[in-house]
Amino acid sequence: MSEIEPVKWQNDQLLLLDQRILPAKEEYMALNTLKDCADAISDMVVRGAPAIGITAAYAIALGVREHYQKTPHDWYRALLQELEYLACSRPTAVNLFWAIDKARALLQPLQQSQEDPFLPMLQLAQSIHQQDIDDNKKMAALGAELIAQSLSASAMQQCQVLTHCNAGALATGGYGTALGVIRCAFSRQLIAHVYADETRPWLQGARLTAWEMVKEKIPVSLLVEGAASHLMQQQKHADIPLKWIIVGSDRIAANGDVANKIGTFGLAVLARYHGLKFMVVAPTSTIDWQTRNGEDIPIEQRDGREVLYCSGQPVAAAGARAMNPAFDVTPAHLVDAIVTEKGVVLQPDSKKMQVLRQS
Amino acid sequence: MSEIEPVKWQNDQLLLLDQRILPAKEEYMALNTLKDCADAISDMVVRGAPAIGITAAYAIALGVREHYQKTPHDWYRALLQELEYLACSRPTAVNLFWAIDKARALLQPLQQSQEDPFLPMLQLAQSIHQQDIDDNKKMAALGAELIAQSLSASAMQQCQVLTHCNAGALATGGYGTALGVIRCAFSRQLIAHVYADETRPWLQGARLTAWEMVKEKIPVSLLVEGAASHLMQQQKHADIPLKWIIVGSDRIAANGDVANKIGTFGLAVLARYHGLKFMVVAPTSTIDWQTRNGEDIPIEQRDGREVLYCSGQPVAAAGARAMNPAFDVTPAHLVDAIVTEKGVVLQPDSKKMQVLRQS
Repeated sequence: MSEIEPVKWQNDQLLLLDQRILPAKEEYMALNTLKDCADAISDMVVRGAPAIGITAAYAIALGVREHYQKTPHDWYRALLQELEYLACSRPTAVNLFWAIDKARALLQPLQQSQEDPFLPMLQLAQSIHQQDIDDNKKMAALGAELIAQSLSASAMQQCQVLTHCNAGALATGGYGTALGVIRCAFSRQLIAHVYADETRPWLQGARLTAWEMVKEKIPVSLLVEGAASHLMQQQKHADIPLKWIIVGSDRIAANGDVANKIGTFGLAVLARYHGLKFMVVAPTSTIDWQTRNGEDIPIEQRDGREVLYCSGQPVAAAGARAMNPAFDVTPAHLVDAIVTEKGVVLQPDSKKMQVLRQS
Repeated sequence: MSEIEPVKWQNDQLLLLDQRILPAKEEYMALNTLKDCADAISDMVVRGAPAIGITAAYAIALGVREHYQKTPHDWYRALLQELEYLACSRPTAVNLFWAIDKARALLQPLQQSQEDPFLPMLQLAQSIHQQDIDDNKKMAALGAELIAQSLSASAMQQCQVLTHCNAGALATGGYGTALGVIRCAFSRQLIAHVYADETRPWLQGARLTAWEMVKEKIPVSLLVEGAASHLMQQQKHADIPLKWIIVGSDRIAANGDVANKIGTFGLAVLARYHGLKFMVVAPTSTIDWQTRNGEDIPIEQRDGREVLYCSGQPVAAAGARAMNPAFDVTPAHLVDAIVTEKGVVLQPDSKKMQVLRQS
């Protein structure tokens, strides 16, 4: 079980493990206001769709506490303004909006009552947090079982897997979506070795995924994104072949199209070309039923300097520009399985996805 | 016309523009021995298959001078030993072996004569160098014409292109293969804008290609390799769409399989998936007629630290490993055109490639 805690509530404040400086330093940033939390999300102190959702819930608890103390009769109006600010922190991860909606549903009825809204909101945040960890473990078991079945079908004992970015403990309440499946499958000895894309420009694979894997003694090899196609091509010579590409998601459309870290879509095309399986692991809070398909998912365009600079040093000639989309959309027809806490959808489409809608 | 000179013979020594420190510094390294030149190739002071071939030829001239001075009656045997060392400097670029073969064919007959072999060898190196620049310009015109035809066929005025790594003036005698085509097509107003993969782990795209494009005022945008699939997917919304992926090559097998910088194969798969065209630009000295297909091309595995470190700083957790293949092989069936100085082969295969074999 992972002992990594990216988000902690301690001594009446929110602690975020600063993911910008991992793995060199393991430091928590203490946060006391909603605004500071929103900035921490923008600045990628915390990242990963489920972890952003959990952080948002705690952030709202901090906002509720502050505004109820300042203006106990009019706290809700002040809070609503700050929720707008929070909603702008990252546009793609839908768990942010999901957490805000849950909070509003709780808080709106409380605005007329005399009750202090802080404790109920903190309890909601804590229950979202705990539920996420529980859901991660359910998904891990379901995903590992998919791997087990695929191995039986090909009369294999073990396989290797490739993951992209970080969909681990650090991206969630503390166990992981894609890396949760990998943890569970490794403990069942279904996986011998993990390949991890380094994931430019933020290097979440190198900095975060490798760190998580090393911590748990799961053998991991990094590769540049450009090497993934070569890796797949070489599998015909491998003793223990690569079989699954396993990723998380920042938003899944109602038809099963999957938004995830830039580079995911290319992996899905390559996986299909090479006859490998492509698994997406995400809680149902990542599904946006309002978004019919992936074309309607807003893609965050981040500052080009994230590409033009490396470790603070400029790498490109002055005058060069950069395009820096943070996410891409993998069409549902390239996805073999979407694994959620409510079950698995194979070869997803709008109709099959409906089974996840029942609560 | 490009004024970039990656390799220069000046004051009886070889000058190499140090490509490891571009674009921050434009400095030449002066070399006086064959061994130092071989090390400079290994260390990537100079890179790019044609530039490696040219450097090797000048390196052999330096070796001939040294050994003829030391042992005028037995210089050839000492040289042969050093040629072994030179041949081990980089395993994939076939132009290295091509240059060594040309030198041996010239020098072997000279070992019995009284003639000083230095001048003939220097003249061979200079003629290989000049021929490469002339060939680059022929290829540039042929490649640009392919682009012009594809635009006419789709009733378009202009397109955008994507390139990978650096196949420019810096990778050749001084004009470029893939970037030669881009230079020529830009001057003919066929290309409006160039996308350049940053090309991890060495960032040749960011450091070298962007530098060349900025120098000639060709608009260029960098992207991480992972963003190429997203870029291609978005073309349905583009005013001036991306139409061609244009790359160089380090070795082309007799059947048209293409070894090039790691990541190239993935681009070719993605280009085919999106209905884009894939062009390889390389002189016939890059074709290895002894290698039947891409499976037989040796792929250089470089030190994993090139992935695990960034600008000298470790980025991954201690204990993580990295796989770091420098090249990959794109099967001929994914290549739309191979452009050489002797002409263009469309949809290459073993039979069609034979047309390039006539001298």
